[in-house]
Amino acid sequence: MFIEIGQFLNQRLSELGIDHIFGLPGDFNLSYLEQIEENTSLEFIGNCNELNAAYAADGYARSNGVAALVTTYGVGDLSAINGIAGAYAENVPVILISGIPPLHAVNRGELIHHTLVDGNYDNIMNCMKEFTVAQTRLTPENAAFEIDRVLKQCLISRRPVYIQLPSDITHIKIDVDAKPLDKRIPKSDPQLLELALNEFCAELYSAKRPAFLIDQTAKVYGLGKVLAQIAEKYNIPYACLCTAKNVIDESSDLYAGIYAGSASQPKTKEIIEQSDCLIGIGARFSDVGTGFFSHQIRKDRYIDLKQYDLTIYDRNFAGIEIAEFLTALLQQLKTREREPKSCSVPLVQAPEYSEQDSLTQAALWRAMSGFFKANDVIIGEVGTSNSSISGICLSATADYIAQPIWGSIGYTLPALLGSMLAQPKRRHILFIGDGSIQLTVQELSTIVRQKLKPIIFVLNNGGYTIERLILGEKSSYNDIQNWNYTEVMRVFNGADAYSTHIVETVEELHTVLDQLESSQTLALIELKLPVMDAPASLTKFADVVAQYDYGHYSYQQLKPKTADIFSPVGTYK
Amino acid sequence: MFIEIGQFLNQRLSELGIDHIFGLPGDFNLSYLEQIEENTSLEFIGNCNELNAAYAADGYARSNGVAALVTTYGVGDLSAINGIAGAYAENVPVILISGIPPLHAVNRGELIHHTLVDGNYDNIMNCMKEFTVAQTRLTPENAAFEIDRVLKQCLISRRPVYIQLPSDITHIKIDVDAKPLDKRIPKSDPQLLELALNEFCAELYSAKRPAFLIDQTAKVYGLGKVLAQIAEKYNIPYACLCTAKNVIDESSDLYAGIYAGSASQPKTKEIIEQSDCLIGIGARFSDVGTGFFSHQIRKDRYIDLKQYDLTIYDRNFAGIEIAEFLTALLQQLKTREREPKSCSVPLVQAPEYSEQDSLTQAALWRAMSGFFKANDVIIGEVGTSNSSISGICLSATADYIAQPIWGSIGYTLPALLGSMLAQPKRRHILFIGDGSIQLTVQELSTIVRQKLKPIIFVLNNGGYTIERLILGEKSSYNDIQNWNYTEVMRVFNGADAYSTHIVETVEELHTVLDQLESSQTLALIELKLPVMDAPASLTKFADVVAQYDYGHYSYQQLKPKTADIFSPVGTYK
Repeated sequence: MFIEIGQFLNQRLSELGIDHIFGLPGDFNLSYLEQIEENTSLEFIGNCNELNAAYAADGYARSNGVAALVTTYGVGDLSAINGIAGAYAENVPVILISGIPPLHAVNRGELIHHTLVDGNYDNIMNCMKEFTVAQTRLTPENAAFEIDRVLKQCLISRRPVYIQLPSDITHIKIDVDAKPLDKRIPKSDPQLLELALNEFCAELYSAKRPAFLIDQTAKVYGLGKVLAQIAEKYNIPYACLCTAKNVIDESSDLYAGIYAGSASQPKTKEIIEQSDCLIGIGARFSDVGTGFFSHQIRKDRYIDLKQYDLTIYDRNFAGIEIAEFLTALLQQLKTREREPKSCSVPLVQAPEYSEQDSLTQAALWRAMSGFFKANDVIIGEVGTSNSSISGICLSATADYIAQPIWGSIGYTLPALLGSMLAQPKRRHILFIGDGSIQLTVQELSTIVRQKLKPIIFVLNNGGYTIERLILGEKSSYNDIQNWNYTEVMRVFNGADAYSTHIVETVEELHTVLDQLESSQTLALIELKLPVMDAPASLTKFADVVAQYDYGHYSYQQLKPKTADIFSPVGTYK
Repeated sequence: MFIEIGQFLNQRLSELGIDHIFGLPGDFNLSYLEQIEENTSLEFIGNCNELNAAYAADGYARSNGVAALVTTYGVGDLSAINGIAGAYAENVPVILISGIPPLHAVNRGELIHHTLVDGNYDNIMNCMKEFTVAQTRLTPENAAFEIDRVLKQCLISRRPVYIQLPSDITHIKIDVDAKPLDKRIPKSDPQLLELALNEFCAELYSAKRPAFLIDQTAKVYGLGKVLAQIAEKYNIPYACLCTAKNVIDESSDLYAGIYAGSASQPKTKEIIEQSDCLIGIGARFSDVGTGFFSHQIRKDRYIDLKQYDLTIYDRNFAGIEIAEFLTALLQQLKTREREPKSCSVPLVQAPEYSEQDSLTQAALWRAMSGFFKANDVIIGEVGTSNSSISGICLSATADYIAQPIWGSIGYTLPALLGSMLAQPKRRHILFIGDGSIQLTVQELSTIVRQKLKPIIFVLNNGGYTIERLILGEKSSYNDIQNWNYTEVMRVFNGADAYSTHIVETVEELHTVLDQLESSQTLALIELKLPVMDAPASLTKFADVVAQYDYGHYSYQQLKPKTADIFSPVGTYK
């Protein structure tokens, strides 16, 4: 059947479950935007800038499964690329569609605005190749198969892809197969799968202390449930890396806490480091995940389970699909008697506070622990928010969104927009620092425009506290302009009611939280917090960062470190 | 002498005349920021995000000669890269210094945050190579010569360069030559220069209708004065491309207006297209500069004078430095009698308005023409502002800043910050649209924090008017949230007084302009303008863009075009 290229692309987006597409208009994407405007199943969400659009698409993909955004060649692509790289690092499937100059101009190397006027039309593509798993420049002759190829790779790798759509071909009709996109991902070789399962089970059955070490992959490929069932059936304790908060039930007594190398609780450390059959689920041993490489894993007893890449000790099995493997494993696995003891690490006793006390991080997070509900979507900016929420036991049905690996500050506010559009009926709660919100603040306008009702806590601690903890506590480069954060709502001129609050004491916090329980409006709460207040785990972590980052300068200039460099990552009662 | 690597870099920046360095802190640049903090001749200007920092550095470089910014590896670099690409396209020398992970980690491919945790430390460099003229990753063994190599290339090419500074080597001392950086740029081969001059003069003397066609290069290499002198001495009329507003005296009777292909005034067109010796000064025949390639230049009578690349008709002379060539030419050139007639194109008669009328673009720019002063720095965002200011005759001592080639909306607000820091005593006036200011609005906070006092006009025409003119006049993707723009000043919590104004009629505009004449504070003026109001030249231009961009779709769907596609670019009385 014949269909316009832009319509075909939109049809594929709809088949993937995409109902909203983020971005900004520009002359090279207007004809495509007309095709979105005509499409009743796709809504264009105009963002305030392209980096925010990319962050919003990332948040949408995390809550919806996959997302798309539209940019304009050059200026738009390069504004968005930091968000695309973040989606790559964090394994989030985002489809970036760039409206590029007309094909006749590209093919002739014409000197067009939004380029370097040197006839080079490869530089943007070269950049995008570094941060996407598939790329294409559409033409009338390749669009019918290139769109499917690129989208399929996005589904398989669950990472960003990049599509260049020349402005003059959007309305050209191409002959395409009427069948919808085959969304199945490639299956494993059945014999190799059987071999791998047998080898895996043999090693597991001969082990005395098997354990799972779970990373974000479990969330990316939807493995939380099957992993919990496997753990239950064979009685396998599981710990998570801090880059995988709440991807599996943390209330189970098989949950062994957050593994973070030397920064782990002793019991977590023992379960992981003394395992004689440690099964990593997409585990990435990054600096932030391992207390700066302080992990002590027995490499000869380590099973590395990644998407299409399984290594059982020293034997690699290429092409074993992780979900298929785990599903088959659950079937095949024998049942092991549950030991009476729980694997759970003891919860940390939260300190008491007086209502008259000034607000502190500890009091804040203690109060939040009681405020969170089972179905919340909680979003934590890197820094004190993400570190603190790591230590709170969340409901298994709550979702948590953060960007701990890429760690681009400002990410969470646009990500909130994206996630809420995907799941408008769930309560969304954002925690973002004052330093971070200044990067992307305008996207609150789009949240207002879309009539969304999140609860947004702005942690105002007078600058970049996470940086101050690392270096330059009093240095002026860590200062920022102290905004009247709640005044920002006046600017955006929304039609709906909203509430703003400024909180300085524990009592005020409790009062506001009580009000929010019954509130149905957008709420923006500025929390006044001490400059250097942070969870102990973050403070100690910052010292280690300084040692790692600044070499001899840190040894000479910074305070001497003890052997006990880490404060274990704990979970509050 | 031995000096710390970071201090050596800072010393070089000071030698280049850099007093301010833009950026944001991040763990990989904190030890370098400490060295900036210690340095009494360098001030760190903390921006709200890295794209804004890059735009601010661009604005600073345009007013100061060269600029620098500091980012954090990965997240910061990729946020800034659109601004760096813009500086490349527009020929602006910006030094991007990225604080990258410690060298020990980079060399070992360790899995660090702000990377893709795959051990790849080349991807950011690969991107930057596309948009900078020199790049380096500093080490203790290369820093003494690599810093100088990269900075020298920045001075020669007057385009961005990229320096990766690993966090652990900032304080390592290296042995460097005590001499300051040799800022001289390479000279031409004297014999080749003589040959070229003789050939040039021979062609010039035999020509009957020589003319200059001047582009941004004249501003970039400071050639405005020598060009005017040459023009005066040999009586050569000169036109400018629209990408070179106010780079040469526009009040001279040798000034022949803006050449824009078919969109030129008849007299301008005649002078350029019928010249038998047309001398292009860095002329780029881009879409926006030529009315979409409607220029009719006699290629066999075209002399192309670029930095280190001179072509006289069909003979190329490599390595002729443009300033050296023009200086020698002025010496050698004989005098030609001035013809009595002026080359100036007639000024367009501006229409009359009643004070009670609603504000229109035409009334606005007519009023502005009388408001501008001789020493102003005027900044115009692409869209209606830049198009309109192109048609206003500015004083030769006024400066004009825009980004017509790269055209990244939102650029001008941070560029205003940068330019004002470089030239704090000059009055700065910014014109920015509502669509554009939403991209980068937070940088107004830094303007407030730095106690700068610009005059900022926000042209509120209810969305992306330039896009509506091209396609989708009523389409929702061209709508934006209608902010209360003047309320934004409440957010930033500045210590100084400011004034805000909302203007809806011609009379109100005149009242506000009168107030501003005597005002010493920051002023933010929202101008309410009709949605589809734009200078005629832009409206016609937009039609041509649509034809060029959307191929058969535009022919089918859009209104039919006449042969008279262009409204000539005029200059108002």
